[in-house]
Amino acid sequence: MGVIHRFIGSDTAYAWEGVAEKAYDRGDVVGASKKVLIGPDEGSFNFRVRYFRIEPGGHSRLEQHPQEHGVVMLHGRALVRHGDQLSELGPRDVIFIPGNEWHQLTTIGDEPMGFLCVVPAHD
Amino acid sequence: MGVIHRFIGSDTAYAWEGVAEKAYDRGDVVGASKKVLIGPDEGSFNFRVRYFRIEPGGHSRLEQHPQEHGVVMLHGRALVRHGDQLSELGPRDVIFIPGNEWHQLTTIGDEPMGFLCVVPAHD
Repeated sequence: MGVIHRFIGSDTAYAWEGVAEKAYDRGDVVGASKKVLIGPDEGSFNFRVRYFRIEPGGHSRLEQHPQEHGVVMLHGRALVRHGDQLSELGPRDVIFIPGNEWHQLTTIGDEPMGFLCVVPAHD
Repeated sequence: MGVIHRFIGSDTAYAWEGVAEKAYDRGDVVGASKKVLIGPDEGSFNFRVRYFRIEPGGHSRLEQHPQEHGVVMLHGRALVRHGDQLSELGPRDVIFIPGNEWHQLTTIGDEPMGFLCVVPAHD
C-alpha cells in the first residue's frame, strides 16, 4: 500500500506528517539535520529520498563513497564541492554526484539551505 | 565528474539547462511531458529522477509494474489513485508507491501539476 507524507511545514521550516528528524552527526557535520522521506520504513527496497537542512554557517561532511547521489535543491543557496570543483546552487538546481566523487555542501548566506538527496538503498 | 542542471524556468514553466523534454506518450496518457533530470546521460546506474508536468485535464497512464516510485510534488494539485485508494496531494507532499501497485496521477483544477518521480534505474 502506498505511503503518503503530507507537507506540514512552512517555507522556512520544512516538515512532513509521519517523518521524524533523524540524527545526522557522523563525522565533521555542522548545523545539519535529516529527514528520511522514503526509505525502509516506507517499504523502499531500491532507493532512499532524504531531506537535509543545513543552517547558516553549516555544512555536510566532506565525504567519498561508492554510492551515487542525486540532489535537488529546495531552498536557500549552497556551495557544493564536487571532485575538484566548487559550484554555487540555488532552488530547483540539480546535481548528480557519481560514486567515489568527493563532495560537500555548505550553506551560503544567512538563510538555511535545504535539498532532497536520493541515494541507492544499500547506502 | 558531477553533472549540474541549473534551473532556468519559472514557477509556471519548469526547465533546466541541459535537460530536454522527452516524449511521454506510451499508452493512455493525456497532456503530460517528462524531463529526465538524473539518468543514464548523467551517469546514474541505480536510480533515475524525472520531472513530470501534467496539464489541466490531463493524467498519467493507469499502470502497474514491479518498479517502485518515489514522488515529491512540486507544484499544483494532483488526485492520485494508488491501489484502491484516491488521495489528493499538493506541493511538497510525498508519496511512495510500492512495486506492483496500480497508480495514476490526475491534475486537479486549472493549473498544471508537476512532480519529481524517482524510479530504480532498471525501469
